[in-house]
Amino acid sequence: MLEAMTVITRNVERRDLPLVSIPICFPAMVPMFASRLDAFDGLARVVMYDDLESDETVLAERMEDATVVISTGIHFSHDLLERVSRTVRCVTFGGTGVASFVDLAQASRLGISVCNAVHYGDNAVAEHAIALMFELTHRVGTLNARMRPTAWPISDIEELTHRTLGLVGFGGIGRRVAQLARGLGMPVTVWSRHPDRAALAELGASAAPSMDDVFARADVVSLHLALNEATEGMIGDRQLDLLRPGSMLINTARAELIAPGALERRLSRGDVTAGVDVFAPEPLPPDAPLRSLDNVVMTPHVAWKSPEAFEGIVEQNVRAAVAFLHGESYNVVV
Amino acid sequence: MLEAMTVITRNVERRDLPLVSIPICFPAMVPMFASRLDAFDGLARVVMYDDLESDETVLAERMEDATVVISTGIHFSHDLLERVSRTVRCVTFGGTGVASFVDLAQASRLGISVCNAVHYGDNAVAEHAIALMFELTHRVGTLNARMRPTAWPISDIEELTHRTLGLVGFGGIGRRVAQLARGLGMPVTVWSRHPDRAALAELGASAAPSMDDVFARADVVSLHLALNEATEGMIGDRQLDLLRPGSMLINTARAELIAPGALERRLSRGDVTAGVDVFAPEPLPPDAPLRSLDNVVMTPHVAWKSPEAFEGIVEQNVRAAVAFLHGESYNVVV
Repeated sequence: MLEAMTVITRNVERRDLPLVSIPICFPAMVPMFASRLDAFDGLARVVMYDDLESDETVLAERMEDATVVISTGIHFSHDLLERVSRTVRCVTFGGTGVASFVDLAQASRLGISVCNAVHYGDNAVAEHAIALMFELTHRVGTLNARMRPTAWPISDIEELTHRTLGLVGFGGIGRRVAQLARGLGMPVTVWSRHPDRAALAELGASAAPSMDDVFARADVVSLHLALNEATEGMIGDRQLDLLRPGSMLINTARAELIAPGALERRLSRGDVTAGVDVFAPEPLPPDAPLRSLDNVVMTPHVAWKSPEAFEGIVEQNVRAAVAFLHGESYNVVV
Repeated sequence: MLEAMTVITRNVERRDLPLVSIPICFPAMVPMFASRLDAFDGLARVVMYDDLESDETVLAERMEDATVVISTGIHFSHDLLERVSRTVRCVTFGGTGVASFVDLAQASRLGISVCNAVHYGDNAVAEHAIALMFELTHRVGTLNARMRPTAWPISDIEELTHRTLGLVGFGGIGRRVAQLARGLGMPVTVWSRHPDRAALAELGASAAPSMDDVFARADVVSLHLALNEATEGMIGDRQLDLLRPGSMLINTARAELIAPGALERRLSRGDVTAGVDVFAPEPLPPDAPLRSLDNVVMTPHVAWKSPEAFEGIVEQNVRAAVAFLHGESYNVVV
């Protein structure tokens, strides 16, 4: 990192207390964590670093002697987790899908408890799915770019109202998308493995008989599944071929839900559009075929990065760390 | 125009019937008008031109001998209206604010009836106001532009939910914005000269005590007034100074509602953002100061240009012309 890194500490004189390390921190979360460190008074020393270091040796040094690591976004290699396991007994993570960042089986073997954060970004991600739909229809960002410096582009727009939204997955984010879409006058049809009939009824959404049915019937298909062994690559050429000309695919969930190459193949036919916030791998490689397609709108995995979501992550991570230090459980995954 | 122009006609052999001229046509409306020309069977001959000609001599030729002109978007100079007034008795216009395109007093003097189209774009424009808000918060278009060809921009986003939306004006579009915003979880406060308490209550919106109060309190201020002598320049430095840091101004109505230069002055302070679809003049001149401000998102007066809105315009213009030919009234302004 070229910018100066600052170390923020609390209670460091209390050598009798266990150490909590915050080895990296997203810029927006620095003041949020800083204002919550009093939660550890009488309970732990805290050392917090305010950059996004990725060098494993440096990270290991920053976690040295720590009992609890508030990791927010560290990708733990097997080696790194092994190295810190001499003292670390709890790792908290700033997101829901912690399994992509820590090998949960290895953590178990090493006697390390892993905690995550949940639902903090439901509204941010749901809004972002809607924002992607708006860009694909009203094209504000595209037109704004074309307005500079001297042009007056001729363009039409499209409306979202009355288009059928098909949701694949109906967890916290999917439900919030259904709610927002209903407010926009979009009929909502939902496929999920275990449909919650009461929630569907409450949101005025209908249950689709199959995932295929969603792809075949909806004007906008939005993915809201968690990534796991059952869902990885679950959407392939067959489902994408069912999309009708003029329809849109929105993915704010995980790129790996779609079989590698399938989205690019479908988009290259040119008759559908997509709004995508997630890629595999991230950052998206410079030579990624998606970059050269003009019927896709891409954002760099930002859907969750609102102040409200950051606050939720900070609060849940602090609570999980404090709970662990009290011998209690909060958001424990393993 | 470099593209070939096509003339579409109907009933031209019926020299006994009066002539309806459609001297220009937006591309999207060509098939829509073409499919509705049967409405004139037994009633009028129709000659329709499928380009956006602006030369007055050519336009006058295209209207020669016409009794009714379906003008959609012709700016009638005094001279042009005078020239066609030998035969023309009715001009229909493809929008609501026909006074900006035809001098109504002159039309009255010349014995020409003028008809407009109303509410066809309420949903399109309301959605576009929301789309501008999404671009100012989730920044999809900006980030998409920065993703190409090789980058992975680091960025946060913001949420709209819970931000207070202040509406200035509460006609068809304002009401639809209130409805959409409510679905997005935004509290809505409204100022209008004649507040419709029942409509406010139905939409869960509150009445603001004054226009100033909307500017001082709302997180997002969206303008939805018609342009007329009472509203021109009604919003000046004083109101814009009331905007709080971090707030947004949305204008999908008319640029002339804001005193010349006031928006640019307020934006240049850098602490507020704006989403703007309307300019004075249009097209926006290449050297317009707005073009160099990076806290404004601009679209080229496209908010109304959805297929649904085009259909509404075509339908209302055909109905107005048919009504006139039957000696009846439909959307008559003067």
